[in-house]
Amino acid sequence: MRYYQIEDLKEFASRYFTRWGVSEEDAEITADVLVSADARGVDSHGLTRLQNYYGSRLESGLTNPRAALTTLKETPTTLSLDAHNGLGHPAGVKAMRMCIEKARNAGLAMATVRNSNHYGIAGYYAMMPLSEGMIGISLTNSAPLVAPTHGRKAMLGTNPIAVAVPAGGARPYVLDMATSIVPIGRITVYQKEGRSIPAGWGINSEGDVTEDPSRVVEGGALMPLGGPELLRGYKGYGLALLVDIFAGVLAGAGFGERVLGPAVSGAANTGHFFAALRIDAFRDPADFAADMNTLLGALRDSPKAAGEERIYIHGEKEFEKADRALVEGVALSEVAVKSLIQAGKQAGIPFDLVPLRID
Amino acid sequence: MRYYQIEDLKEFASRYFTRWGVSEEDAEITADVLVSADARGVDSHGLTRLQNYYGSRLESGLTNPRAALTTLKETPTTLSLDAHNGLGHPAGVKAMRMCIEKARNAGLAMATVRNSNHYGIAGYYAMMPLSEGMIGISLTNSAPLVAPTHGRKAMLGTNPIAVAVPAGGARPYVLDMATSIVPIGRITVYQKEGRSIPAGWGINSEGDVTEDPSRVVEGGALMPLGGPELLRGYKGYGLALLVDIFAGVLAGAGFGERVLGPAVSGAANTGHFFAALRIDAFRDPADFAADMNTLLGALRDSPKAAGEERIYIHGEKEFEKADRALVEGVALSEVAVKSLIQAGKQAGIPFDLVPLRID
Repeated sequence: MRYYQIEDLKEFASRYFTRWGVSEEDAEITADVLVSADARGVDSHGLTRLQNYYGSRLESGLTNPRAALTTLKETPTTLSLDAHNGLGHPAGVKAMRMCIEKARNAGLAMATVRNSNHYGIAGYYAMMPLSEGMIGISLTNSAPLVAPTHGRKAMLGTNPIAVAVPAGGARPYVLDMATSIVPIGRITVYQKEGRSIPAGWGINSEGDVTEDPSRVVEGGALMPLGGPELLRGYKGYGLALLVDIFAGVLAGAGFGERVLGPAVSGAANTGHFFAALRIDAFRDPADFAADMNTLLGALRDSPKAAGEERIYIHGEKEFEKADRALVEGVALSEVAVKSLIQAGKQAGIPFDLVPLRID
Repeated sequence: MRYYQIEDLKEFASRYFTRWGVSEEDAEITADVLVSADARGVDSHGLTRLQNYYGSRLESGLTNPRAALTTLKETPTTLSLDAHNGLGHPAGVKAMRMCIEKARNAGLAMATVRNSNHYGIAGYYAMMPLSEGMIGISLTNSAPLVAPTHGRKAMLGTNPIAVAVPAGGARPYVLDMATSIVPIGRITVYQKEGRSIPAGWGINSEGDVTEDPSRVVEGGALMPLGGPELLRGYKGYGLALLVDIFAGVLAGAGFGERVLGPAVSGAANTGHFFAALRIDAFRDPADFAADMNTLLGALRDSPKAAGEERIYIHGEKEFEKADRALVEGVALSEVAVKSLIQAGKQAGIPFDLVPLRID
């Protein structure tokens, strides 16, 4: 691994995006979301995607670098927005900012975005209201990879659910979960390593559970959270569908097979959903924070299963990694660094950052 | 099975509740929620619980039959309510009615309820806004039965998530799912039948997955949706915790181990969370309905796995059962009928309904 300073990586990524005609503001936002993913240890959603998810689409005109986010419909509590096929990250950040502003006045607010693109980690947006003492929710749909229960064709995205809840001065609860068991990237890692995958992660083109990652990737599908019917995979299917209803249908965006993946030619028409809630609309925030800490503390301190030493709260591992990244730098793998060198070459912006250390 | 007319069952249950001092209005609401569960095929949450979940607690004074739902805090979009240890069903119905009323004006509304009791099927309340063309959400916490990932002690309830979304004239999407893989009642059924349970449903007191239902019931715990870590059970744990945060902590109700089960002496202090959203705050409801039908239709029509004939939308099975119950009557098992006879004896209200048919 090579460790780089966060600010250096952000600056590089930001320059990369402006190179493709993205405004300074939008480039900085997008760089911040991507580098935050790496810093939090969610490297699958970080800088490795710079070229193949974003740069190559900007270069070929599949994503509009100069799209403005416009308002289609507005009430004191709701916003229906159109990203006009711009980058998903600035659309998401601006939509959540507007949502927070409305929630400040109305107690609650929700915003949808249509005609957007892949916006990176859902949790980034859910965490934005935390600094205001608000709860944040962020949902997005994505290109089909998950088969419905009893089905054999990928019809729904891995459609994540992210919810962040403040806990006073203590670390917040941050759930950020795909509604599939694993992302497709996890399957391809096993495929590259020639390993079989655990039964339950995916199905083959006949709809049967398979331990061969190639059968999942080639004509198969991911299984929704829960896996087979015996373990209630239809609940995970229900959650994936729920996200598509809120982020896709309610937004007037694409949904189901109408959402296109980054490698597909054509507008992705991804949809997002955001919500912000003021705690003090319901109860005294100090009492809320005290109860949050009691609940989270009770979970952490509860008896461990044999061989386990720690019970985690959602988001905890990522906060610890982000704290470490501030001191030690953001860890990038050999593969990630190679992809940045390649992206830099393509854009004419050499990736020549000096790592803080290598191990 | 014995089949009874819906209205007959509701009248019996309503008389049963008034016998314990519950008002006519509240008794009718509670009867309607319970019989609706049986009609929809969710018999685990129906009339079989009349005595052991509700009647015996009213009789012994553990639940207050005459509690009024009061407002602790109110804004144009939010309500914080106190059920004063009354039945959960009327508290839930009244809270959702108030939520719908606020959403009619504000586009969105949310309500929390503290000091409540078990409210039956979460989906009943989520479906209330459907007739107004709104989306409904209903969450409740419950007594601890689920262990956190890496834990071995039940710390969270089976905390269900229910969301209902209108689809124009077509059947709505109604997700109503416990965040555990199965409810505890499923484990005890296997225990009574002397069968082993599928690996993944529950753990023993050491925190290891067990196929012995007795080990789950006696000192073990249910597993959250997803099951073991390999299949990402920490996501189900995260959802169970999310529900406890919204329905418990945000409501100022009990949470975690502070929520007491129906068999435990003391106020349950269950908490609920409700939300209602106007579709037309975001987009034209006709367009929304058209897209809903396209999405749900595409899922239904997508290729089936080997050996499967049908892909279901969430709520579909229950709607079909409810339609059949309207014509054929509500099917009650021998065990359920016996429990009603027993409940009737206890209350001095004989259960003497004549079944429409027996099979």
